[in-house]
Amino acid sequence: MAPVFYSNVILLLLASLNLASGGKLLVIPMDGSHWLSMKPVLKQLRQNGHEMVIIAPEVSIHIKPEEDFYTLKTYPVPFTSEEMNENIQSFSDHVFEDVPFLVMIAKTFELMKKSSAMFLGSCTHLLYNEELKMYFRENKFDAVFSDPFWPCGQIVAEYLEIPSVFFLRGIPCGYEFEATQCPRPPSYVPRGFTRYSDHMTFPQRVKNMLFHFTEFFLCSSVYTPYAKLASEFLQREMTFVELVSNGSVWLIREDLAFTYPKPLMPNMIMIGGINCAGKKPLSQEFEAIVNESGEHGIVVFSLGSMVSEIPMKKAMEIAEGLGTIPQTVLWRYTGETPPNLAKNTKLVKWLPQNDLLAHPKTRAFITHAGSHGVYEGICNGVPMVLMPLFGDQMDNAKRVESRGAGVALNIIEMTAKDISEALKAVIYDKKYKENIQRLSELHLDRPIHPLDLAVHWVEFVMKHKGAPHLRPAAHDLNWVQYHSIDVLAFLLAASLLALFISMKCCMFCCRKCFCKSGRLTKKSKSKSH
Amino acid sequence: MAPVFYSNVILLLLASLNLASGGKLLVIPMDGSHWLSMKPVLKQLRQNGHEMVIIAPEVSIHIKPEEDFYTLKTYPVPFTSEEMNENIQSFSDHVFEDVPFLVMIAKTFELMKKSSAMFLGSCTHLLYNEELKMYFRENKFDAVFSDPFWPCGQIVAEYLEIPSVFFLRGIPCGYEFEATQCPRPPSYVPRGFTRYSDHMTFPQRVKNMLFHFTEFFLCSSVYTPYAKLASEFLQREMTFVELVSNGSVWLIREDLAFTYPKPLMPNMIMIGGINCAGKKPLSQEFEAIVNESGEHGIVVFSLGSMVSEIPMKKAMEIAEGLGTIPQTVLWRYTGETPPNLAKNTKLVKWLPQNDLLAHPKTRAFITHAGSHGVYEGICNGVPMVLMPLFGDQMDNAKRVESRGAGVALNIIEMTAKDISEALKAVIYDKKYKENIQRLSELHLDRPIHPLDLAVHWVEFVMKHKGAPHLRPAAHDLNWVQYHSIDVLAFLLAASLLALFISMKCCMFCCRKCFCKSGRLTKKSKSKSH
Repeated sequence: MAPVFYSNVILLLLASLNLASGGKLLVIPMDGSHWLSMKPVLKQLRQNGHEMVIIAPEVSIHIKPEEDFYTLKTYPVPFTSEEMNENIQSFSDHVFEDVPFLVMIAKTFELMKKSSAMFLGSCTHLLYNEELKMYFRENKFDAVFSDPFWPCGQIVAEYLEIPSVFFLRGIPCGYEFEATQCPRPPSYVPRGFTRYSDHMTFPQRVKNMLFHFTEFFLCSSVYTPYAKLASEFLQREMTFVELVSNGSVWLIREDLAFTYPKPLMPNMIMIGGINCAGKKPLSQEFEAIVNESGEHGIVVFSLGSMVSEIPMKKAMEIAEGLGTIPQTVLWRYTGETPPNLAKNTKLVKWLPQNDLLAHPKTRAFITHAGSHGVYEGICNGVPMVLMPLFGDQMDNAKRVESRGAGVALNIIEMTAKDISEALKAVIYDKKYKENIQRLSELHLDRPIHPLDLAVHWVEFVMKHKGAPHLRPAAHDLNWVQYHSIDVLAFLLAASLLALFISMKCCMFCCRKCFCKSGRLTKKSKSKSH
Repeated sequence: MAPVFYSNVILLLLASLNLASGGKLLVIPMDGSHWLSMKPVLKQLRQNGHEMVIIAPEVSIHIKPEEDFYTLKTYPVPFTSEEMNENIQSFSDHVFEDVPFLVMIAKTFELMKKSSAMFLGSCTHLLYNEELKMYFRENKFDAVFSDPFWPCGQIVAEYLEIPSVFFLRGIPCGYEFEATQCPRPPSYVPRGFTRYSDHMTFPQRVKNMLFHFTEFFLCSSVYTPYAKLASEFLQREMTFVELVSNGSVWLIREDLAFTYPKPLMPNMIMIGGINCAGKKPLSQEFEAIVNESGEHGIVVFSLGSMVSEIPMKKAMEIAEGLGTIPQTVLWRYTGETPPNLAKNTKLVKWLPQNDLLAHPKTRAFITHAGSHGVYEGICNGVPMVLMPLFGDQMDNAKRVESRGAGVALNIIEMTAKDISEALKAVIYDKKYKENIQRLSELHLDRPIHPLDLAVHWVEFVMKHKGAPHLRPAAHDLNWVQYHSIDVLAFLLAASLLALFISMKCCMFCCRKCFCKSGRLTKKSKSKSH
């Protein structure tokens, strides 16, 4: 009887401990690859005893209800699954269109507008969903965990008056720097889409400055509607920057082994490479393919989850290039098989990218240079051939190339010969392997794993109800005050006044002296007469 | 036979592994409390299998040869132990002198000049010591570990062409920000000795800006001689900032639970509170005193290792104040016993400060607000009565007070009544305990202990031969380039030129039109005539 009683007491104690330590987190994620890299953090938080509720639209790419570590609450949206897929396919098709520059810009703008409207519509439907509103009122959450790329989560955090943690690669146009009050001198911090390194020539610095001036103007069309939505919903006026500046901690998927060093604020936590965690052994199918590759090894090829089909002409060009190397190529591709596909190339609908890259037989990685892929290439030390498609991918590709760890190709202009030469270079020229190996060593030599770091900071914000001690006082200053323009103007005015008074005093004294001496001279003159 | 053979092989393997992982670190520390907080890092590094050689002057306060975890190499210096102690005593005496402001400034300057000359002399004797030079040539080190407050270590690092790690509280006048290219807006980052918080009024911001303008001028008298010494010794011209800017990683003894949030560079690692590590149980003697204190508990009182004697009048004032509380006061004091010492006050020559502060019976901590003491107060959650003496202590005291975690007193002006009231406030007014408890919780809730963080970064620099990937490109820009003044001037000139050309074109067109219409009018006029 006694042991049973004691064990029950212990169980009860453990349960109460779990209850005491476990919090409740509201997760409003960004769909796509953003969600995929957020998932391991949520899994770990669940293991630490926290309860998680995910809010997602009914139509989604990757957020599925079948996971067991969270509760999913969905809400209806004003678009269908087909419309969403069609939108993604349009983006994918557009990437391979060889059109004049201005047409390309116009088309990109049009596609962006369409996507933005979809995201904004989804946010409006979330905020004004009565069922969700009631659910929020009935449930008490400790914090909101979201990606400010889609700032809907922050509007909910403001509505519920609870702190929030951000998980992001970045916000277009560097809004994350403005919102955290983080200085970002345009003289050595390259702006997005410039493809520059931190060492810029004078013309490059001029162009970087022009990008700096125009970027907020360019992105305001995407983010100002959220400020309007937030102002209406919360019944108080706010700008987009004010909205997101309330994020307590910013978990940024960047790492200094790869990102150029620049100032950071104390609430910006670098967790780049978080997606490399949790390697699993290969399945029998993939293990067999890798083993069959012999001494030459394999090449892993994926253009990410957004691009599954490419025009046949381009696919044949790529297939021809891939056929020129002795390595086995594993190509994640769901489109029609190119007729000239060589024997060494195997098309697969899906591949365990990180696990394959971790295999010692992997010689090279052909990637679209998405940040997830690039970090997986770095942490596994695999040299890359980069075929950037859109967004930050051009910058990522340039950065890998500038570190001598890969070769970047222009997906529109590249020929089979270019692909073949790039592959042979990264596989057989030792310097690529050495450089990526060095990057990998720097990246992996860290005091704490980015996953643990991310989990720590989410728990910190949940436990301490935010992180106000990390919020700089700069938020309470306006532009003039922040740059001390009022102080400098005052000091200048004071100096000028002091100078003016001193001069007046000097002149007065001089006049007195001269007058005196003048009188004396007159006197002496009159005496001599 | 076989097990012995295998165990030998294992031992050999382990030894070779240790040799492979263990490096050799050259430590050129700053004496005094700086050295005491550096020691735990060295102990941990020794445990991790690294060899350590400490270079110190023959005359030193705390650096003793009897420790077993390092090799000590000493060099002769042009001053005796008595001269050094006399210098320290002069500083201590000066603190308690109640003299007019200008006299105080002049005296401080004179004392600083004397100390600086001593430090500089020590550095010159280190650099030009032939025995040490030979030792450096014969031994290969992986890195230099030093405190840039006394920048001699960095000159040695430059001489040996090896990377360096800095361990510091700060360099006077904020040189650490200039040397790391870290922005420090004077609008919300208070300068040293101002005693301001990060929220400043307009007059405070003006004063802060004036401090900003004058601080480099003030400190150059201390640090320019090192630049001269380095230039002569290394046979290449360099400024002080250039010299210390080569430090790979800066381990800064600050923590954001206490320091106001501001921008940081990626190679600035916050390790504040590192000195709280390694708590030990109290000795029988101290345990007995604490237990005897009963329900009232104890108060710990120390003015740091630099001040051991104070003027009798002041000591009596303090003793009277201490006698008014029911707590037992443990006062670290080596001077003459004040005749009015109350029964509750026990004078001790030394006390285990951190271990006593950790005791649940400790009710308050009377401290000179040195950074070590303040962090020990924070990590143990003990409210403080602060009696700052010199250096950064005024700012530290103000900061604790501004967080509502203590009461600051002016050591010159305070009376027995002030001391008594301050002690009663921090002991009996719950808000002080609550505030320090909150600071303590924020400070201790960290993803990794500062000691492990410090050890990691020293090992990182030793292993990777520096951390060039953390060095911002800003170092390669001059002042004009960094602030993009050349770029802005060019853009302004280009805009003006474009405006000028447009205006000229417009005027030309207008003239053409007007002329045409003029001619037309003339023609029509002539026709009508």
